[in-house]
Amino acid sequence: MFEDAELGHAVDKATYEARVATLRSELLQAQFALKDRRTLPVLLLVGGVEGAGRGETVNALTSWLDPRHVEVNGLGDPSDEELERPRFWRFWRALPPKGKIGVFFGSWYTYPILRASLGKGPVRWAKLDRRIDEIVRFERMLSEEGALVLKFWFHLSKHAQDRRIRELKKDPHTRWRVTGVDEDYFKRYDRFREVSERTLRHTSTAMAPWLVVEGVDRRYRELFVAEELLRALKARLDAPKAAGPTPARPSDAPEVDGRRTLLSELDLTKKVAKPRYEKELEKWQGELALLTRHKRFRDRSVVVVFEGNDAAGKGGTIRRVTSAVDARIVRVVPIAAPTDEEKAHPYLWRFWRQMPRHGRITIFDRSWYGRVLVERVEGFCSPYDWERAYGEINDFEEELSGHGTVMAKFWLAISKEEQLRRFKEREQVSFKAFKITEEDWRNRKKWTAYSDAVCDMVARTSSARVPWTMVEANDKYHARIKVLKTLCARLEAALR
Amino acid sequence: MFEDAELGHAVDKATYEARVATLRSELLQAQFALKDRRTLPVLLLVGGVEGAGRGETVNALTSWLDPRHVEVNGLGDPSDEELERPRFWRFWRALPPKGKIGVFFGSWYTYPILRASLGKGPVRWAKLDRRIDEIVRFERMLSEEGALVLKFWFHLSKHAQDRRIRELKKDPHTRWRVTGVDEDYFKRYDRFREVSERTLRHTSTAMAPWLVVEGVDRRYRELFVAEELLRALKARLDAPKAAGPTPARPSDAPEVDGRRTLLSELDLTKKVAKPRYEKELEKWQGELALLTRHKRFRDRSVVVVFEGNDAAGKGGTIRRVTSAVDARIVRVVPIAAPTDEEKAHPYLWRFWRQMPRHGRITIFDRSWYGRVLVERVEGFCSPYDWERAYGEINDFEEELSGHGTVMAKFWLAISKEEQLRRFKEREQVSFKAFKITEEDWRNRKKWTAYSDAVCDMVARTSSARVPWTMVEANDKYHARIKVLKTLCARLEAALR
Repeated sequence: MFEDAELGHAVDKATYEARVATLRSELLQAQFALKDRRTLPVLLLVGGVEGAGRGETVNALTSWLDPRHVEVNGLGDPSDEELERPRFWRFWRALPPKGKIGVFFGSWYTYPILRASLGKGPVRWAKLDRRIDEIVRFERMLSEEGALVLKFWFHLSKHAQDRRIRELKKDPHTRWRVTGVDEDYFKRYDRFREVSERTLRHTSTAMAPWLVVEGVDRRYRELFVAEELLRALKARLDAPKAAGPTPARPSDAPEVDGRRTLLSELDLTKKVAKPRYEKELEKWQGELALLTRHKRFRDRSVVVVFEGNDAAGKGGTIRRVTSAVDARIVRVVPIAAPTDEEKAHPYLWRFWRQMPRHGRITIFDRSWYGRVLVERVEGFCSPYDWERAYGEINDFEEELSGHGTVMAKFWLAISKEEQLRRFKEREQVSFKAFKITEEDWRNRKKWTAYSDAVCDMVARTSSARVPWTMVEANDKYHARIKVLKTLCARLEAALR
Repeated sequence: MFEDAELGHAVDKATYEARVATLRSELLQAQFALKDRRTLPVLLLVGGVEGAGRGETVNALTSWLDPRHVEVNGLGDPSDEELERPRFWRFWRALPPKGKIGVFFGSWYTYPILRASLGKGPVRWAKLDRRIDEIVRFERMLSEEGALVLKFWFHLSKHAQDRRIRELKKDPHTRWRVTGVDEDYFKRYDRFREVSERTLRHTSTAMAPWLVVEGVDRRYRELFVAEELLRALKARLDAPKAAGPTPARPSDAPEVDGRRTLLSELDLTKKVAKPRYEKELEKWQGELALLTRHKRFRDRSVVVVFEGNDAAGKGGTIRRVTSAVDARIVRVVPIAAPTDEEKAHPYLWRFWRQMPRHGRITIFDRSWYGRVLVERVEGFCSPYDWERAYGEINDFEEELSGHGTVMAKFWLAISKEEQLRRFKEREQVSFKAFKITEEDWRNRKKWTAYSDAVCDMVARTSSARVPWTMVEANDKYHARIKVLKTLCARLEAALR
């Protein structure tokens, strides 16, 4: 992996200056095309050993680019707001929008590599491999979403690093840069090398390759990075828009046993009589209120997803949940059309930005599952896009539950007949009329396609840690009690 | 102020239930109209004494509203990210967009009132009055920007609060709510009352009134808040769009002494020869680099504003600044058309969200001054809107400098002839051609109107703490050196 970067690459001054003169205008032109088309974000990751010139190179590069469309992220220690969210939150937060170049100095590689270098025993390798898996999937998602991802690793041989650190120490102008930490790292050079070599090998992919730069010669490393960036930018800007591969499985389900499905097996006649409902409602709302005042609740975030047929009663059910807890700790996020800032980022960005702090609940009224439901059925995205969404959603939810976020996902199911009854009722009650639109009638015509999508969704995204709860919602009382009860059970298990 | 709220207001159960039944659907309808039109945000502030039922009332209110369009902000202690920004940043961050209701539990009143209640000596009154002034201006800005601001103060007489706290303590279900802090507050009842009474009196305005609610009876306070909100919502939704008053002064300046202005007095022949430029550039860039590595720099944020004639060389100058400092600590924010999320918030929101953390620099390439420059000249907003912007900008910048943010504002001035020369040059150089548009030629025709706007801007927003620096930019070398030198001086003064 590092062999080429120990050859002693260097560029002489004349070559460097001649090249830089044209390189700058080429970079500016490519950057202008990037900004103008606003079709892709560029991520430039910078990692490597201490003293290999990462900072200087990024500074040179950004001085050649138009700084208005470059965002350099110096991600050091996470802030307390970041610590209260899943690990990747801070990176999602820093993702550049389409048309911009985001430079990541300190990235999702920093802590995994550091931990494995400083850690002991075989478990550190197991942990590293887990992080590597997550990273590979995260970067795949980024590139599937159209991002250009380039990763530069600044390398120095042990000998070169030693020399470099001694040089820095000698010069009074640069002495400040050699902190105690740097010297520690140097002592651990071999370990660090072993860990980063393994990490790089497993995370260098076609869509997000690592490019190892020898860090000895300033001119060489600057030209190397700039040329690679320029080539990649040009190639991507010139590339025709790929249609995406054709998924193996067509979207309509075969009728093998007369369409027995998760949905058809639901007993929609389940009912709760009003007197019992009122008693149970009070009971479970009280229980929920108590749970959210539990001491340990303050260190947990809660994310609740509501999906369901149109008119299945999501709004009313959500209100029964929110009214049970302190309004200060709960937020309902209705998912409608994305804003233009949201459109400029990967699909899941708009959900990541809503992740609650500890001690808070976010309820999504419709959610990231839109991609595998309405977008799939209506053809708003390509089959490949919604097919890959299952995996991305699973990764996303694993991130959340790995952080300790308590999650619940509800599908509120009603029968086709019950829906018709409710549509008609809504049209007649004046102050509910706004709730029913042309679109609702149109969606209704695709009942079977939606049912297929729901069954696939549950089959592919329900897990032991983050299961789907199917809620029989022909009877609103039954539905509300089931939701409250499930939510309490989920919280109880988490806080125990 | 509190007399009416000690009368013992109460509502009986029958009246309450009858009213609530219709109130809910009226509230939902008003809320739907609010959401549908997306013309105004609603801010609902909740303050008052402990035990007066603030939490319960907000919970009741939000259970009647559609929770999807209500954002309840429980603003407790600020996070570290918030502490690194000016005081109002966290409130700007939580402002609801148009069409939503933002409930503020813990607001810009919390700390000023607490501090003045706990503080000692006459200085606490002086400090309180200063905070009050800031608040009045902030709320005026909100309402001028179209927000509906309603403030509810939950009051209990000393006797009633005493009784209330004893009741809460007796009941094992509510005992937890009486913390040590509550009892402290109670001991300071008289002081708290005096401070809040003064605050309320001075901050109750036509556009953002305080409504004092007696907190003894649950039904009374719930109906009170809901009815006031409903009335205010309806009235605002029905109100015709106000044109805004006509400012006293027309926008074109009189020619009293043959148009001698700040701009006409600039000596645009100022020049720096290339050899000296190169020496000075190195010197001041080095100086800037050193200053940004100063120990005390880590506790300061820097905000730099660049405005200037088209083709005055803002981009090139900015690059000379950014290339002098570590790319990790600087961000350039080019101000173009606002995104739809930005349009849904008050004008300054888009700049507030870019405020840097400590140890970071944000450079604005064009800025909040757009309102009093291009928007004024092109008539993109009403004369009243840009007239009031001066005051709002002054408040904004005072907030920043009050927090310790180091600020510099540069106007890069070139002559009309020099601009023509540069436009023509740009059209000829292929890779600069994108920099010149039809709009630039159009703006050029309004040279005098722009000059008037610039002079007014400097006259009204240049202060000892945040002065404008006029930069003679016919010679790019001179301009760059002057900018770097000024920036260093400003930083040096701040870090000394």
